[in-house]
This record gives sequence, structure tokens and C-alpha cells, in this order.
Amino acid sequence: MNAEIIAVGSELLLGQIVNTNAKFISKCLAEIGVNVYHQTVVGDNNQRLKNSIEIAEKRADLIIFTGGLGPTKDDLTKETIAAHLGVKLVTDQEAMESIEAYFIKTKRVMTENNRKQALVLEGAKVFPNENGMAPGMFYISENHSYMLLPGPPHEMEPMFLQYGREAILETMDEPQKIESRVLRFFGIGEAHLETEIENLLLKQTNPTIAPLASEGEVTLRITAKHQSSIEALRLIEQVEKEILSQVGSYFYGYDDTSLMQELIKLLSSKKMTIACAESLTSGMFQAQMGNFAGVSSILKGGVVCYTNESKMKLVNVKRETLNQFGAVSKECAKELAENIMAQMDTDIGISFTGVAGPDPLEGNPAGTVWIGIARKNEDTKTYPLELASSRNGNRVRSVKFGCYYLIKALS
Amino acid sequence: MNAEIIAVGSELLLGQIVNTNAKFISKCLAEIGVNVYHQTVVGDNNQRLKNSIEIAEKRADLIIFTGGLGPTKDDLTKETIAAHLGVKLVTDQEAMESIEAYFIKTKRVMTENNRKQALVLEGAKVFPNENGMAPGMFYISENHSYMLLPGPPHEMEPMFLQYGREAILETMDEPQKIESRVLRFFGIGEAHLETEIENLLLKQTNPTIAPLASEGEVTLRITAKHQSSIEALRLIEQVEKEILSQVGSYFYGYDDTSLMQELIKLLSSKKMTIACAESLTSGMFQAQMGNFAGVSSILKGGVVCYTNESKMKLVNVKRETLNQFGAVSKECAKELAENIMAQMDTDIGISFTGVAGPDPLEGNPAGTVWIGIARKNEDTKTYPLELASSRNGNRVRSVKFGCYYLIKALS
Repeated sequence: MNAEIIAVGSELLLGQIVNTNAKFISKCLAEIGVNVYHQTVVGDNNQRLKNSIEIAEKRADLIIFTGGLGPTKDDLTKETIAAHLGVKLVTDQEAMESIEAYFIKTKRVMTENNRKQALVLEGAKVFPNENGMAPGMFYISENHSYMLLPGPPHEMEPMFLQYGREAILETMDEPQKIESRVLRFFGIGEAHLETEIENLLLKQTNPTIAPLASEGEVTLRITAKHQSSIEALRLIEQVEKEILSQVGSYFYGYDDTSLMQELIKLLSSKKMTIACAESLTSGMFQAQMGNFAGVSSILKGGVVCYTNESKMKLVNVKRETLNQFGAVSKECAKELAENIMAQMDTDIGISFTGVAGPDPLEGNPAGTVWIGIARKNEDTKTYPLELASSRNGNRVRSVKFGCYYLIKALS
Repeated sequence: MNAEIIAVGSELLLGQIVNTNAKFISKCLAEIGVNVYHQTVVGDNNQRLKNSIEIAEKRADLIIFTGGLGPTKDDLTKETIAAHLGVKLVTDQEAMESIEAYFIKTKRVMTENNRKQALVLEGAKVFPNENGMAPGMFYISENHSYMLLPGPPHEMEPMFLQYGREAILETMDEPQKIESRVLRFFGIGEAHLETEIENLLLKQTNPTIAPLASEGEVTLRITAKHQSSIEALRLIEQVEKEILSQVGSYFYGYDDTSLMQELIKLLSSKKMTIACAESLTSGMFQAQMGNFAGVSSILKGGVVCYTNESKMKLVNVKRETLNQFGAVSKECAKELAENIMAQMDTDIGISFTGVAGPDPLEGNPAGTVWIGIARKNEDTKTYPLELASSRNGNRVRSVKFGCYYLIKALS
């Protein structure tokens, strides 16, 4: 089976946004053994879209559209496809109810043009939109199948993963199973990791091993093809074992996990509580913790002590400590962690103090950071960092290092 | 003049990389008044590339290719174009010298296939590659012009800016200048905004008005074409005035700004200080403030009071308030804002308390939020929200509403 992806939207042709949808869908299709030979972008224009459909029908079995399903006048993807196929547009009751419910819930006035979003191709399988209003569709004609997905990536991606991919798999005869697994590493650079496992990278065929670096982390995606899923997974496990025997000490988790998620898992399994005092990260560690539902049994609370005054007022850091050693110091990190733990009566106290940048502070260059980890009945530990990223990059990395050191301390 | 961009590369079709080249070139072309009606991606395959060229010739005057100019066997863009046009490939002496110099400089051995990179279409204008080896080309035939650019963005982008754009401008009779401006709105949905300015959307030609929604915000991009930049800007200002006379109360800023950035500008200009007490947002408001350098003169500090216990311990919320009204209440929001302001001795105290979700709390559904804004010598204001997003979406929107209400209160 081969597919063409048609992204519809003038904002793409004006260069206002980049077509991440084509990349996402292409990658997912590659994983289930569907070939993508063409990606096309066309504007919100009836005639040009129609021509693009006709061209795609000559060279692809499956045509996947993204964009142009919204409520406004320039959204005309489904109208154009319906006219081209000679299929009626009918109101999907479920979609209409979900749109109405959305407006009732948010107490906003539903304008008439929003009803348009509940129109679907007659006879199509309808995909609910759990992150927006426009539903997706899958329509099978004699020679082709057509999938219509919304344009915003945060609506399209979950919809494709939950409904789109499965709908395509159902139309395939003997699909090759593709399995993949991502190994996540922290505390090692990409080039260093690649050098360490060069022997494995050189001989890779099936499975393949693809390294990727971002924001201080490195991942390895292992991908194996086989007619049997079980066999593909067996191939992956073999390679994983070899990789971990060489660089396992930097490994921290699989697939879509994060350092924060692993930390929360660990704290939760140990029934431990935590409190935080954040200076340069100014709430970022706690804000990330707050992303996880049910975290109130772990995160008792904390302070954002961006200024020296707040370090004294909110966490009782001694004036002498600040005068003698400065805010960016081992001593300050230690007091912050110990005091916030005592104040909130938790098992752990963690602190972040340092220079986010771009300017130096107290004679310390941007990127100088101290992390403190206090634990009940144990000696407080402090960790110095010398980061070299942007202001925000330094803050993001500080949070990751905080998670990493705490995981190591507790494991 | 209208153009089509053809990106050549199997790595794009496999979803390994995203096609930033198409975005970059489209944006540059829009700026000089060249319409892009199609972007295409095709693999490193002779026959399919040839077909794509034939299709593009039917619908575009200018065809810009990126990728497939490298030294290896799968790089076949210029070979395919040469065969299609019946033009010879000849060695470009300057390109050859620059390739040889590159290998001498990096002390690497030059393999034979690298000579292939110096081959160019006979009669083409050749663009030197200052960041790699493969030169670019511009070839003009009777009815079309063809531009060939390398695939790696760090080679393609500077080459296009320095040579490609100029070469296109030389072929144009009366180049149009394009100017654009983005207006940002908050507190109004996309469909609602469009209904409000439907009169303007219906009659738009030049300038055009393009709405785009994301994360609770809506933007309108106004784009005008004219031979004179000044005149284009005048056209934009005229339309902007009309838009703002209809929906100006939701407008908050231009182009790449954000609500937080506007808030910081405002606080900074008024030399006001702020302290925050965050429950459901658990530090996100303060973490976003911390992204801006020099914010320590504004943000004095605050607390993350995710639990009832921390609301009492860290911000002195009265136990009776929590017992009588609950944590998700007007009364709790008020006390949090007032107490943190008093504690940190700031001009403003802001608080966030509510139910991020997914589960309800104290009988309040997910998305119920109270924001409190306390100001020195003024009555404290509280604002209820009923949000309908995901757990994290509710937290992100709460922060945006906090910025929005505070901007409104101070303006």
C-alpha cells in the first residue's frame, strides 16, 4: 500500500508554519509498513485542492488530508472532497453533541458556523476529536481510501494514533509488523554515546538504532521489522541488552517517559513526600511536578525565592550565609533544602539556586548552579553544575539534573 | 509570478526530518511577492521526480528544488532535471576548486564521488556554497525557471538569502513588497472573533486577514502587497484600525509577544512588584515570569501551595476559610492573594486556586478556577473561570487568564 499526504492551508504556503503533520504521519506510516511517495501542500482553494486530489489518486492508494476542517469560510477540505467524490455531507449527531457540550461547558456562545464542523462525508467512519471540535473521517471508495484529519497538531496527532492508524491497519492484507522502543539517557552527550556504542551502530540492519539529542538528553530508537510482533520485540530486546551493557549507567527510562515522571514513580512507590525551594528555576520544578495528576500526595508545597529577601523571608536562610557565601553557593543550596524540608515536614527537600543568565551574578558566570538535596536522617548533599545553554535552557537543564540526582540518590 | 517548491529526499518521506526548507523559502517568496501555490516532497527516485517536475511545470513559473545535490548514488536531482530539459552537465571550475580546498583544509581524503558535486547544468547561473560543497544553480528556459538548492538548511538558507532571492528578483518586472503584522487576542474564541469581524473578512483582498487559533489565543495576520513598503504598511494600518474598532477590547499585543511579556512590560514601566501564591498552577506563573531576564526587580517571590496544609503553613490561609468555603473558592483566592502580598511586601499579590483535573475536587468539576488579584490600597478582585481543556491545558490557560486580568486591572 502506498500513501500521499495532502496538507491543506494557506498558512503553510505563506511560510508561517512548518508542516510537522506530514512528518508525524509519514513516520507513523513507515512504522506500519505503508510507503509514502509524495507529500503535498496546497492552499485553501477549491480548484487547486481538487486538482491535487486527482493527481494523488493517480499515484496513491491512500490519501490523507490534514487541515481545513474548521468552522470558518476558508475551511473547505471536506466540501471539496465531497463534491469530488459525489458524496453528501451529513450531520454527525455525536460530533454535534460534543460541539454543543463544549460551548455549554465553557459558557461561550455557539455561533452558527460552528455547526459546520459536525458535517461529515456520508458513509465515512467518524473519528471523535478529543482535543478540539472538528471530527476526523475515513472514507473508502472502490479504488482509494481517504482520511481527513484536523490541522492543529495537538488535535491531529492523538486522533491519528488512537483511530487513524487502526483504521488503516484494518484495510491491509499482510502487514509487516514494526515494533520500536526508545531508550532514554541523561548525563551523556550524543557524540560520546555514539562513540561508546559505535560497534553496534556500524553493524545495524534489523533492528536499526537511531540516536537523537534534545535539551540535554539523548535517546536511541530501536526499530525492528518482522511478520510477527513477538519476533520483532525479541530482536529489539537483544539489541537493547547489548546497548545497556555498554552505556547502561546513563539509562533512565523507556519511550515517552521523562526524568520527572520517573522521579514521581519512584517517590510514589516509596510513599515519600517532597518540598522545594526554587531560586533560578523560579517554580519550574514544581510546575512540572504539577503536570501529573494525584501529585498532591507527594508534593507538599514550596517556595519561589527568586530574590535574597525572599530566601530569608520565606525559607529562613540566614543573612550571614548570603553575606558570606552568596546566594549562588553550596551553603545557600544546603540551607534552602534543609529549611524547606523542615518547614513542610517532608521526607525530602530539594533546592535550586544559581545564575540563569545571560549576565553573571556575584562573580559567577551564567550557568553556575547549585542543587541541594536534604533527606530526613541523612546528610544533605549538594551538586554543582556548570551549564552552557541559554537562560531558559539553563533553567530547564537544572530541573532535569535535579530529577536525575534525586533518582540516583533514592535508587 | 507563482512558484512551486519541490523538496527531494527519502528522509522526508520516512518522517525522519521535517521540511523546514519549504517553510523558509515560502516565507522569503511571500516577502517579495511571489505566490507559492504548491509545496511537494518526493523521494530520491528518478521517475517520480521527473513526474513531479512535469506536474509543477503545468502550474508554476518558477520551480525551486532542495536536496539531492550531494555526492552519493541516491542524489539525483540535477541529473534528472538535466535529462528532462535536455541540457548537459558540465564541471564548474570554481566549484571544483572549492571542493578540493575543503578536503585539503580538513585533511580528509577526497573520494572520487565528490567530483560529482562540481557538475552543474550547462548555461545555469551557479551559486557558491559557503557552508558545504554542493553549489546551487539557477537555470532559465523559455517558459520556466528552475532553481536548485542543497538540502541541509544551514547550507540552503544562507545561499538562498545571498544569491537565490536576488536571482529571482532580477527576473521580475515590478517586484511587489509584502508587509505583514500579527494582532493577538485573548478571551475570545476563533469562531466568535470571526463572526464579529465578518464584514471585514468578506471584503478582504489586499490586505488579507488570516485568523489562527492556539492554546486559548487567537491571532489575525494582516498581509498587504504593494510596490512600496510604506504604502503596504499604510494599508495594514487602515485595516488594523477597523478591526480594533470592532474587537479591540480583546486585543493585547503585536507579532511575537505573549501575555506574560506584556504583563512584565507593564509592571516594569510602573515599577511595581508582585508576589504569587499558586495552587493548581503549582509554580507555572512564576516559572514563566522567570523566563525573562532581569525579572528579579518585579517578582519578589512566592509560594507553591498545592495542598491545604501548605496554604495554611506557607501563606497563613485560615483553617476556617478552607473548612467553610473549600480551597477552590473566591474566599481562598482572596486570602491567598492578600496574604502573599503582605508577606512579601509587594504592590500586587496574585493567586491561583482550582481544579486542574482530570478528577473533580470538593464537588467542583475539573476546570473550575479562582484567580485573586490583591493591590495595595485597593479592594481585592477575584475572577472565576470554567475551563474545558486537559489537566495541563487548564493550568496553562489559568496562567494566561491571570496575566490577562492583571493587565486589564493595571491598564
